[in-house]
Amino acid sequence: MSAEKTAAKKGKDSGARRELVALGESVIKDIQKGQNPKIELSVRGLSNVVYDKESKTLGLGDKTAQRFFFNVAHAKKFLQTIEIAAICKTLLDVDKHASLRDVFYMAKRTIPNTKTNVVDEQTESDKAIEDLELITDFSRENLNVNANKMGSVAGKVVIEDAGDTIDWSKLGSGGWSVPSNVENIKFKKVEAKYVIYMEKAAVWERLHEDKFWAKQNCIIMSSQGQTTRGIRRLLQRLSKEHKLPIYVLADNDPWGWYIYSVLKFGSISLAHMADAMAIPEVKFVGITCDDVLNYDLKRHFIKLTEQDVRRLKQMQKYEWFEKHKGWQRQFKMMKDFGAKVEIQALSSKGISFISEKYLPEKIKRQEFLD
Amino acid sequence: MSAEKTAAKKGKDSGARRELVALGESVIKDIQKGQNPKIELSVRGLSNVVYDKESKTLGLGDKTAQRFFFNVAHAKKFLQTIEIAAICKTLLDVDKHASLRDVFYMAKRTIPNTKTNVVDEQTESDKAIEDLELITDFSRENLNVNANKMGSVAGKVVIEDAGDTIDWSKLGSGGWSVPSNVENIKFKKVEAKYVIYMEKAAVWERLHEDKFWAKQNCIIMSSQGQTTRGIRRLLQRLSKEHKLPIYVLADNDPWGWYIYSVLKFGSISLAHMADAMAIPEVKFVGITCDDVLNYDLKRHFIKLTEQDVRRLKQMQKYEWFEKHKGWQRQFKMMKDFGAKVEIQALSSKGISFISEKYLPEKIKRQEFLD
Repeated sequence: MSAEKTAAKKGKDSGARRELVALGESVIKDIQKGQNPKIELSVRGLSNVVYDKESKTLGLGDKTAQRFFFNVAHAKKFLQTIEIAAICKTLLDVDKHASLRDVFYMAKRTIPNTKTNVVDEQTESDKAIEDLELITDFSRENLNVNANKMGSVAGKVVIEDAGDTIDWSKLGSGGWSVPSNVENIKFKKVEAKYVIYMEKAAVWERLHEDKFWAKQNCIIMSSQGQTTRGIRRLLQRLSKEHKLPIYVLADNDPWGWYIYSVLKFGSISLAHMADAMAIPEVKFVGITCDDVLNYDLKRHFIKLTEQDVRRLKQMQKYEWFEKHKGWQRQFKMMKDFGAKVEIQALSSKGISFISEKYLPEKIKRQEFLD
Repeated sequence: MSAEKTAAKKGKDSGARRELVALGESVIKDIQKGQNPKIELSVRGLSNVVYDKESKTLGLGDKTAQRFFFNVAHAKKFLQTIEIAAICKTLLDVDKHASLRDVFYMAKRTIPNTKTNVVDEQTESDKAIEDLELITDFSRENLNVNANKMGSVAGKVVIEDAGDTIDWSKLGSGGWSVPSNVENIKFKKVEAKYVIYMEKAAVWERLHEDKFWAKQNCIIMSSQGQTTRGIRRLLQRLSKEHKLPIYVLADNDPWGWYIYSVLKFGSISLAHMADAMAIPEVKFVGITCDDVLNYDLKRHFIKLTEQDVRRLKQMQKYEWFEKHKGWQRQFKMMKDFGAKVEIQALSSKGISFISEKYLPEKIKRQEFLD
């Protein structure tokens, strides 16, 4: 998927809508020719996920499959794909957005004169949407289907969105609530010099109260736990369109590190979307195992669980980490520690230690894992 | 806890700080008199939770307990309470806020010449903070300790917060991100006539995209799942200070209904905070079991799980629901259905059915469960 395409026009004029119409037309053409209607798409799943060493992101290989209407094994999926394509086209026609759950309910109906439903479970409509991402080469967000909204942002940035001009530096203690879909945001003025993305909302509130973004002239952004697609796209747009460096601040544990991995390289389940989602320029600011030593955080060790150790071993073997000396060193250190440390452990050194000492020092010394 | 107290001045001048200082002074007085230092506080836990039929909220009874320093069973808890009180006083002195997790790390240290830590688990510092809420009669938020931040808001309201003037009607598709602590927000202009609080962020985005708040002149607010304390306090302030009716929109299932119950009556675990948290004026707009019939949603039935049925039975017996005919009727209908329905099922009738038909109709007819 090309970056240009994802920054398409909205609603009726969008390229995504054109692709959906083209899909419908190709099926009609098959019918008119008296041929078995078919849809062609790339194979998803691990067997076709490849790590592209050049772009340094995950992506799909070139295995493709055809799905036929007159095929007992394909017919239902074929129908679901067409049905969801029609729903997405309607959304684009009326320029409205729906959640994944909404789309499921919009598709859920019984086929006349049968006892068969178009979809019975949301996983079916979700999969059809992923198929459409592949077929149209547009992300779900460009098909006007949104995931959950979460997260906040603050910093010296002015945007235009849904007719409003919004200054991210003038939103009190709350900040701007990041929507699930950020495709139509226009950046009017970007004064900030870099972005810190953190996994924890509580850390965001700490940095925000300390006016870290004003003192350092940066953007602070956070969701809670796994990064939402809205946040990932927003970070990517700031990276691609404004060349802002992006630093990830997460717990010193395999899950915190995985948040970084997903942001930078993409995730296996979204490999077909890597171009639209991965941000190869992302750097990890901490918490590293070296930080644990340098900032005397050993006394806040939390023993690794079996699950942690398993996750650590998996990550050690990921192709994109396997030959990375810096990360392999981190994995080994954590294993040797047998323990992990939370970001908030820094609070034991003073409530604003993180914003007054830890982060300014790390950023000044450019101490990043890349 | 009185409503006036919770709207106290901030930082050094706050009543909460005065109460903390008074606690310290009373302990010093005990010491100077050669008496065993003690702390007196109400007993928490079910044995002392009462439902006040007049105020229609949960609260604590009048059982109190004393905690002594020279008592092997009390000494550690005594120390923890004093230590956390000192941390809260420091936070108020420097006018900064910390998360519950931060406070845990700030308290976590080894007592000199021993192998004993002040706290080993966050539950210990959390409990000490709840104790301080009881002792000082101020909420955690007034002690500058915050829970997690979540949720968004939009509507015709202008506030002042942390030096910024923020117009909730001019924040694009994202809305204002609600902070964890809303005690210091000043309402400058409240044009909106009522509030719809919904449990799902996706439903919020639906209503927001449809400009429901502009058309209906209301406020739309949402967190995701259980309501955060920041949101609860914000709703309460809009109810108490601006007399806005508050309508809860949640799934047609025991968990959605419980979200309403907690907002209206308070929760058992926060019974000591009921005054500061419960909002007796809240009404339930839906999804009711009557809605399921009237809006033809039966075909989206999801079978109740064993857990759902258990939860339903529990709620049926809650003192505040026990004699409520309207709710008992709902509980019985759901039991008879043996099924629940999600809000998003309304999307099967059209993407904007909820904002163009369902909600306007229900609100016009004032069809609420109270």
